[in-house]
Amino acid sequence: MSSNADGMNYAPQGKPCPVVKPGEFVFAAAHLDHGHIYGQCNALREAGAELRYVFDPEPERVARFLKTYPGVKALRSLDEVLEQPEVRLVAAAAIPNERGPIGCRVMQAGKDYFTDKTPFTTLEQLAEARRVAAATGRKYFVYYSERLHVECAEFAGQLIRDGVIGRVLQVIGLGPHRHGPPGSRPDWFYRRKRYGGILCDIGSHQCEQFLAYTGATDGVVTDARTANYTFPEHPEFEDFGEAKIEGNTGASFFYRVDWLTPDGLRTWGDGRTFILGTKGTIELRKYLDVGREGAGNNLYLVTERGEQHLQVAGQVGYPFFGAFILDCLNRTEHAMTQEHAFKAAELCLHCQMLADRRRDPAL
Amino acid sequence: MSSNADGMNYAPQGKPCPVVKPGEFVFAAAHLDHGHIYGQCNALREAGAELRYVFDPEPERVARFLKTYPGVKALRSLDEVLEQPEVRLVAAAAIPNERGPIGCRVMQAGKDYFTDKTPFTTLEQLAEARRVAAATGRKYFVYYSERLHVECAEFAGQLIRDGVIGRVLQVIGLGPHRHGPPGSRPDWFYRRKRYGGILCDIGSHQCEQFLAYTGATDGVVTDARTANYTFPEHPEFEDFGEAKIEGNTGASFFYRVDWLTPDGLRTWGDGRTFILGTKGTIELRKYLDVGREGAGNNLYLVTERGEQHLQVAGQVGYPFFGAFILDCLNRTEHAMTQEHAFKAAELCLHCQMLADRRRDPAL
Repeated sequence: MSSNADGMNYAPQGKPCPVVKPGEFVFAAAHLDHGHIYGQCNALREAGAELRYVFDPEPERVARFLKTYPGVKALRSLDEVLEQPEVRLVAAAAIPNERGPIGCRVMQAGKDYFTDKTPFTTLEQLAEARRVAAATGRKYFVYYSERLHVECAEFAGQLIRDGVIGRVLQVIGLGPHRHGPPGSRPDWFYRRKRYGGILCDIGSHQCEQFLAYTGATDGVVTDARTANYTFPEHPEFEDFGEAKIEGNTGASFFYRVDWLTPDGLRTWGDGRTFILGTKGTIELRKYLDVGREGAGNNLYLVTERGEQHLQVAGQVGYPFFGAFILDCLNRTEHAMTQEHAFKAAELCLHCQMLADRRRDPAL
Repeated sequence: MSSNADGMNYAPQGKPCPVVKPGEFVFAAAHLDHGHIYGQCNALREAGAELRYVFDPEPERVARFLKTYPGVKALRSLDEVLEQPEVRLVAAAAIPNERGPIGCRVMQAGKDYFTDKTPFTTLEQLAEARRVAAATGRKYFVYYSERLHVECAEFAGQLIRDGVIGRVLQVIGLGPHRHGPPGSRPDWFYRRKRYGGILCDIGSHQCEQFLAYTGATDGVVTDARTANYTFPEHPEFEDFGEAKIEGNTGASFFYRVDWLTPDGLRTWGDGRTFILGTKGTIELRKYLDVGREGAGNNLYLVTERGEQHLQVAGQVGYPFFGAFILDCLNRTEHAMTQEHAFKAAELCLHCQMLADRRRDPAL
């Protein structure tokens, strides 16, 4: 992807193009509870997939969706979606605790599934999805957008695969989010059983990045903590979470997630990733370079050769989505293995469970 | 120190001046094993103290010291230093495991002590110093330079005291260091019993910053880990350490220290501190702003009012040292309490002990 030979000139690979011809990969969108469904659909469409159907129980949500995607046909139920023979994949962004059961229905109908994160809120949902995926041979994939839909995060993976920073020893992830004005979030956002807890919810992105950058296939949670510092009116909500994991490569991981982005920040969150390798370091400033003008997608690379700031917005693209479509068509696992998607979910659930027990030892 | 009223214009306080007249506060330097002794002496002299004597068992080290500080008188032993009635304070940078016993001798001679960090390598040394400090009424102070001798780190404390980011919820500290070329470090640097382990040694800075920024007076170590990834020729050395602490204010702390700074970085380490408050965030880029031109001492502040980059080099000074001299003269604790200095040492020792037990459960 980049030339190591000329030293300090690591450069992003070209953007991917559509990987299929029009109509070759048809998908549907169902359950539009989280706005991430638009990112999911956009990414698949840009990679060549055709969005043909939509279903949501709320007509206003469907109407808004159809304004963005004219020509898509609204269906009356998930069952009706699953009856369409040309639909290969269902993209969904349901309420978190419903994502697992919906995915199992989709897979049992013979179709692949692409859910917003977090994919599960309990280990039981995960176990059932593992069982159904194995039994049906279908895919349960997850929109881990904080890596898959962020160009500098994708580029970091390419640099690591090229050996530019040596063996990865540690990853640190900071995932602050903006809550937004009071009343801007649906009720389920504050219900513990429905959103799953902060380490399970937005922490799932973090766990996925840890596995991706270290190559770990499993890990042990060594510390986890959650708190609700600033939302006393929502007692089941958590606005702060942090956890530590040790992976089976020997690399370790610390992450913090929160809903405390100050109003004065010009984006929804100053997402960062720090990757320490034996031969260099990578820092990602994903959505902005705080206190400085300019866009997001900043990668700071330090190796034996020097320091380099790479602003890669518009240069890397989102190769995951095309690779994912081809994986669906060819039944391969180049974009991501099924077990990777499940393991990230498992780790974030273990983080949440340890934090829960520490807050309430009776659990 | 700064005006909150005009919004985004937080500005550093003026630099401190000498706090005493020439000859009013005389000190000596003894045990020059670590080069930090020069930073210690410079800071005290700039605050008005007079460096009058030096002692070290190695004549070459004394000769080099005298080139930097002409007019200082070399003495033949620590005892001879302690016999000088006008010496109020002894500054020292001995090998870490000797710092505690030397400090006790200094205090028992009726003088205050100012040691390089880390102040102790065992809990027993700490307990003895606590006992002697209480019995003699003398001070055992520590050169926690990564806060006390870094202008942006000092300024962060001023902003927090002013309430600019609200209640501090979490601190993250990254303390990478450059090892330097093979052969550039003395033998004791690699001897576990002498340097104390990485979390105890350079981790002591980190624990001190956590206490300072959160106001915590105690904490519990919840996770700690060390490793030797890249120095197989020095089996007792640790080039990586990380730990988590929960303070008695409810705030938490994660830190990483390492000896893995890539050769291409233009300073010895990309030291960072991230402080999350209920009303804002502070990031320190202490020694450089990686990938960008310009000096260190960068403070990035985000509040409800916006984002601000403050480059405070040359604007804050090092007020600790003058306050410390006045504390010695007036027997007050404005610069730092004795217990704060001891507690930071205690926490880093607890971190090290937990990491030691995890590497070798027989310990």
